[in-house]
Amino acid sequence: MSWLENSIMSRKGLAKGQAGETYAITEASQGKYHYVYGPYVDPVLTVDPGAVVSAETHDAFEGQIKSETDKPSEILNFPYLNPQNGPIFVNGAEKGDTLAVYIKSIVPRGPQPRGTTVIMPEFGGLVPTHDTAMISPALPERVKKLHIDENGTKWNDKITLPYEPFIGTIGTSPEIEAITALQPDYFGGNMDLPDVGVGAVIYLPVNIKGGLLYLGDCHAAQGDGELCGVAIEHPTVTTLQIDLIKGWSVKIPRLETKDFIMSIGASRPLEDAARMAYRDLIRWMAADYGFEEIDAYMLLTQCGRVRLGNMVDPKYTMGASIKKSFLTP
Amino acid sequence: MSWLENSIMSRKGLAKGQAGETYAITEASQGKYHYVYGPYVDPVLTVDPGAVVSAETHDAFEGQIKSETDKPSEILNFPYLNPQNGPIFVNGAEKGDTLAVYIKSIVPRGPQPRGTTVIMPEFGGLVPTHDTAMISPALPERVKKLHIDENGTKWNDKITLPYEPFIGTIGTSPEIEAITALQPDYFGGNMDLPDVGVGAVIYLPVNIKGGLLYLGDCHAAQGDGELCGVAIEHPTVTTLQIDLIKGWSVKIPRLETKDFIMSIGASRPLEDAARMAYRDLIRWMAADYGFEEIDAYMLLTQCGRVRLGNMVDPKYTMGASIKKSFLTP
Amino acid sequence: MSWLENSIMSRKGLAKGQAGETYAITEASQGKYHYVYGPYVDPVLTVDPGAVVSAETHDAFEGQIKSETDKPSEILNFPYLNPQNGPIFVNGAEKGDTLAVYIKSIVPRGPQPRGTTVIMPEFGGLVPTHDTAMISPALPERVKKLHIDENGTKWNDKITLPYEPFIGTIGTSPEIEAITALQPDYFGGNMDLPDVGVGAVIYLPVNIKGGLLYLGDCHAAQGDGELCGVAIEHPTVTTLQIDLIKGWSVKIPRLETKDFIMSIGASRPLEDAARMAYRDLIRWMAADYGFEEIDAYMLLTQCGRVRLGNMVDPKYTMGASIKKSFLTP
Amino acid sequence: MSWLENSIMSRKGLAKGQAGETYAITEASQGKYHYVYGPYVDPVLTVDPGAVVSAETHDAFEGQIKSETDKPSEILNFPYLNPQNGPIFVNGAEKGDTLAVYIKSIVPRGPQPRGTTVIMPEFGGLVPTHDTAMISPALPERVKKLHIDENGTKWNDKITLPYEPFIGTIGTSPEIEAITALQPDYFGGNMDLPDVGVGAVIYLPVNIKGGLLYLGDCHAAQGDGELCGVAIEHPTVTTLQIDLIKGWSVKIPRLETKDFIMSIGASRPLEDAARMAYRDLIRWMAADYGFEEIDAYMLLTQCGRVRLGNMVDPKYTMGASIKKSFLTP
Repeated sequence: MSWLENSIMSRKGLAKGQAGETYAITEASQGKYHYVYGPYVDPVLTVDPGAVVSAETHDAFEGQIKSETDKPSEILNFPYLNPQNGPIFVNGAEKGDTLAVYIKSIVPRGPQPRGTTVIMPEFGGLVPTHDTAMISPALPERVKKLHIDENGTKWNDKITLPYEPFIGTIGTSPEIEAITALQPDYFGGNMDLPDVGVGAVIYLPVNIKGGLLYLGDCHAAQGDGELCGVAIEHPTVTTLQIDLIKGWSVKIPRLETKDFIMSIGASRPLEDAARMAYRDLIRWMAADYGFEEIDAYMLLTQCGRVRLGNMVDPKYTMGASIKKSFLTP
Repeated sequence: MSWLENSIMSRKGLAKGQAGETYAITEASQGKYHYVYGPYVDPVLTVDPGAVVSAETHDAFEGQIKSETDKPSEILNFPYLNPQNGPIFVNGAEKGDTLAVYIKSIVPRGPQPRGTTVIMPEFGGLVPTHDTAMISPALPERVKKLHIDENGTKWNDKITLPYEPFIGTIGTSPEIEAITALQPDYFGGNMDLPDVGVGAVIYLPVNIKGGLLYLGDCHAAQGDGELCGVAIEHPTVTTLQIDLIKGWSVKIPRLETKDFIMSIGASRPLEDAARMAYRDLIRWMAADYGFEEIDAYMLLTQCGRVRLGNMVDPKYTMGASIKKSFLTP
Repeated sequence: MSWLENSIMSRKGLAKGQAGETYAITEASQGKYHYVYGPYVDPVLTVDPGAVVSAETHDAFEGQIKSETDKPSEILNFPYLNPQNGPIFVNGAEKGDTLAVYIKSIVPRGPQPRGTTVIMPEFGGLVPTHDTAMISPALPERVKKLHIDENGTKWNDKITLPYEPFIGTIGTSPEIEAITALQPDYFGGNMDLPDVGVGAVIYLPVNIKGGLLYLGDCHAAQGDGELCGVAIEHPTVTTLQIDLIKGWSVKIPRLETKDFIMSIGASRPLEDAARMAYRDLIRWMAADYGFEEIDAYMLLTQCGRVRLGNMVDPKYTMGASIKKSFLTP
Repeated sequence: MSWLENSIMSRKGLAKGQAGETYAITEASQGKYHYVYGPYVDPVLTVDPGAVVSAETHDAFEGQIKSETDKPSEILNFPYLNPQNGPIFVNGAEKGDTLAVYIKSIVPRGPQPRGTTVIMPEFGGLVPTHDTAMISPALPERVKKLHIDENGTKWNDKITLPYEPFIGTIGTSPEIEAITALQPDYFGGNMDLPDVGVGAVIYLPVNIKGGLLYLGDCHAAQGDGELCGVAIEHPTVTTLQIDLIKGWSVKIPRLETKDFIMSIGASRPLEDAARMAYRDLIRWMAADYGFEEIDAYMLLTQCGRVRLGNMVDPKYTMGASIKKSFLTP
C-alpha cells in the first residue's frame, strides 16, 4: 500500500489517506436499494473523511435471475435495475469538493453459482437496441449462471477466467438530477470500466452537500466494451476508504493507480467519450503537473493509453491515461 | 380546427378532443420554476382530461440576459437553466397511458426587446463542447437582443424572420429519474423541434400517476439543428389543451398535424436519433394502420421525411414523418 | 428558367449559363459503365462549357434485377455496382475550378416495370451492416418491381408516389483516388439527396484537368435517409447543361435553386455531415454575401434548413441551406 | 520465433512460414512512392510466397519537414501525403486469398533528428477538422523534431519514450478503387495501430491478382488514438516476410501474435469500428475455433480486449482481440 502514501488522496485529503472509523452497510441496514443517482433520498450512513465502509452489494439483477431457464425479459422491470448501496453522506463535503475513494477489497458473497450473465432483448453492443434501433430480429435470450470464487470464474470445463473484480457503478449524486443507475456520466455512475478495481483510487465530484456516494454492480470479470451488455455480475462485500479533498475540483471522474493517472469520459458517440477523457487528462496535466496544454496534447499522442469501458450503456465510457513516469514536463 | 375532430386525440381521448375547464399558470401561481423533469415536486395544478391551460413561460435564461453587453458565462448558473412550468397532474393518468397535448396558441409577452439569442462557451453545433471536447480556443461570447411580435422577429434592418413559434421543451415526468430540462429523451423534454408548434398535437408517455406535464422554452423561430445552441428565446403565454388516452401507449414522443404523423427520436450520434424515430414510426404504422413492418420500411424509404430538431443538446433529436395520405397499406 | 439568368452559373460561368452544343451518351456510345469515380479511364466525351449532354443512365443494379423472385445477394457482385456514365472531359477545366451542372430533365426509359427497390443483406438504415456490424439475424431479402411514368410510381393499388426524379450519384473525379460509386464525398458521388433534382444547379470541385464528370443512379422518388438503402431505382435519359467557373472554388458540393443555396456534407457520424454542410454554408455566406462568419452562424441557427440525403451509404449526407431572401447581412 | 511455427501463417501458408528469397526496395529502386492504395500502377517487385523484403520507408511527410520552424500547412500538398513503398506482386495470389505478412524488423534510418511530429490545421482528435467541422479558431501550428535510435525517442531532457516501432500503413490493393494512403479500410491502409509491430503477423485480403502489397508510415512510438494526428514519424528499413494463404479469406485485416488473435475494424463513428472488429473476431472464433457465435459473443464480453488505433483519420480503427489461451470452446 506504499504508493498510496504518495497518492493524491494522501497528499490532498482531509484524512491524509489514513483509515478512520469502520462501518458496514449490510443488506438489512441498507433496506431499500436505489436505482437512481440523486439527492432525493436520505443517506443510509453518515461518515467523516477517512471512513472505511464495507457494503453488501447486490448483483445488477438484484439476485432475481436464479436459473439458466429464467427469461430476463419477463423478470426484469425497468427502471428498477442495477440496485445501488448508499447514499453515504460525507461530513464536510460541499459542492466543488472532491471525494477520493480507495477501493480496498471486493469479496464475492452468496450461494453458488453466484455469477450471472445474460443475453437479453434490445441490449448489447452487437444487437439492435433502444438507441441503435433496428427492425431486424433479436437474438434469443440466454442466461448463464457461473461458479465464482477468488480463484476465478469457471466459464466451462476448459476456461476459467481470472477473478479480476471491479466496481461497475460508483459515483456521487448530481445536484438536482436523479439519473438511472444504468447510465455513466460526469458524476461516475455505471462506468463499467475494469480499472475501477481493487487498489485504485477514484476521484469523484461533489455536487451537493455531503457528496452522497452510491455504489453497486460489481463484476467478477469483464472484457473491454462489456460487449453483450452484461459482465459477470455477482454480489459482493466491497470495502472502500473515503476521503475528502477541499480546493481540488474534478469535472468528470478521475482515477489513480500505482502506475498511472486516468480521466474517464462518458458520452456518445464513442469518439466523444475519448475526446472528453483525453481533454480532461490534458487539463489535469496542465493544472497539476506543469505541462503546457499543447505539450500535453503532443505527448499523449505518443504515450497515452485508452481503455474502453462499456459500449452498451446509455452513454459509452473511455478512460484515457498516462504513466506517472512520463509526468515530467 | 376541423382536422382535430379526426385526430388520434379526438378518437381515443377520454375528453374526445373537446375543450374542458380553463386554467392559468401565471408567474405568481407557478412560483418556483423547475429545472428537471422528475417526480420529486408537488404539482402546480391538477386537472381533468380536456383542460385548457395557459402558462406564462419564461425564456430559457429566466429573463436574466437583459442586454447585449451581458456575459452569459457569468450570469448563467448550471444546472439552473431552462425553467419549466408545471408539473400539471392529470386526473386518471396511470403508467402506460398517453397524454395528448394540443398546442392551441403561443403568444409573446414581456417588454421589448423580448427575444434573446447568444453564443456561449462550450455550447453549440460548430464549437467544442463538454462532449465533443477539444482544446482549440472558444468563440467569443455574444448576446443579441431582439424585438419580437406576432409579425416576426426583427433580426436587423434588412431581415425579419417570420414568427413561427413552438415549444422547445415539453414532456412528462420519468418514473423515478429527474432529468435536466436541457435534455430531450423518451418522455419529451428539450426536443427543440419546430414541428412542436401551434396546431399540432403531441403524444407523450405517462410514466407515473398523473403524468406530470412540464413545459417551457418557447422559441420565436429556429433553424434545423438549433445550430449555435440557442434559438430565439422568448417569454410567452402558451395555451395547451390536454387529453388523456387509455389503452394506447407511446414509447417516445409522437406528433400529429393535419397532414402527417411523426415519431421523435432523441439520442446520439444523430443517426441513432433517426433510427429511433423511423423504427417507432414503422411500429406505429404496423400497429395502427395495417402495414407489415417490412412494407412500412420500404415505403418510408420512398416517402419518409426527417426533420432535424437539435444537434446541440445532450441528446440530439430527429422527427421522422409520413404524410397521412400515404397511410393506406 | 428565368431565375437561372441570375444564378451563380450564369454570373460566373464561362458560357454565362447559355446552352451550347448538344450531345448524347447512349448505352452504345458509353460502352462500359464505370463503378468508381477516378482519373484512370478515358473520357467518353469531351465538351466545351455550355454543352448540353443527354445520358442514358442505368439503374443502380445495371438492370440485372428483373423479377420479384430474384435474389439480389446472388445477382449483385460488389464492387461492380451503381454503374456510371462518363467521364465527361470539360475543355479548359483545371484543378481549383468549379463545374456548374444544371439539371435540365430526367425522363424514365426502358420497359415496364422500370422501377426497382430491394431489401438486401447488410445494407440499410435499420439493419446490421458492414459498418454497424451486428450478430443478430438479417431481414429476408425482398424485391419490388414498379411501374413508373412521369405521373408517378405505382406503389400498390392505393398509393401512387409522385414522380420526383433526381440524380442519386453525380460528381467529378478525385485527383489520384478512385472511389466506389457507392460512396458520397467531397467531389459529389453517391449523395442520394433529393434536392439534386430537375431545375437545380450543382457546383462541383474540379480536382484534375478536364474535371471528369460522372453521373448515374437516378431515383424516381426517395424519402429522407433512403432508409432501406435502395430508392426507386430506374433507368433514364438525363440531360445536363455543363458550365465551367474560373476563380471560384468549392471544397464540397454546393447546390442552387430558385429559392435557396445549399452546401452538401458527406461524413459519419451524421452530425459530422451536418457540421461539414453548415460550416461550408457559413464560409460561403461570408465569402460571397458579406456576412461575418459569426453572424452567419447565428442567423442559420434561426432559419437554416437541413435535408437528410442518405443514412445508409459508406458516408452519410446532409444538405444545409438558407433561403436566398435571407442573404442580406 | 518459435510461436511462429504454430502460427496461422505457418500452418496455412504456401511457404509454411519459411523464409524464402530476400529482396530490398531501396529509395532508388522504389523511385516514385505512392499516395493511394490501388491497382493502377506497376509493381515495384514481384515475389514468390516466403519472400523476405526489406523496404526503405519514408516518413509520412516524405522527409519534407526538416526543421522546427517549418510550417506544415505551407509544405504539405494534399493528396501527396504518406508515401508508400510497393506495390509488391505476390505470385499466385488471387482474389479471395489472404496475404500473411510477418513483421521481422523495423530499424530507424536517416540523419538525426530523424523523428517528426507536428500540430497542423484541421487535423487531430481534439481540434476542428474537415469532418468534425467547426468555426472556432485552430491551434497554432507546431513542429517537433526528435532524436530516435533503437533505445528510444528523446522527447525532452526528462522524458525518453521507448522505441516501440510499428507500421502505420500497410495493406493490399482494392480491386478497382484507389484509396488515399491516409485512410484505413477493409484492405488495411492507414490503420495506425501499435499492435502492427515487430513480431506480429498481419493477414490481409487479396482483392486482385498478385495482391499488390503496399507499406509505409512507420512510427517510433504512438499513444492510443494518435491523438494530435501525427505519431513519431520516422524513416526506416522495414523487413517483412510474405506468405500466401489459399482457401482462407479475411474480410478485414486480422493480426496474430504469440499471445492473441485480433480483428481490426475501420469505420466511423468509433463504436462502428469496434463493432466491426468484434463481429469479425466472433465469426473467426466460430469458423476456426469451434465456438457457437453466441458463445463467442458472451465470452468476449468477459475477456475481449480492445485497442484504439487512430481516432483522427478518415476512418477510425479499433482492434478487438482474445488471448489464445481462451480459444477453447
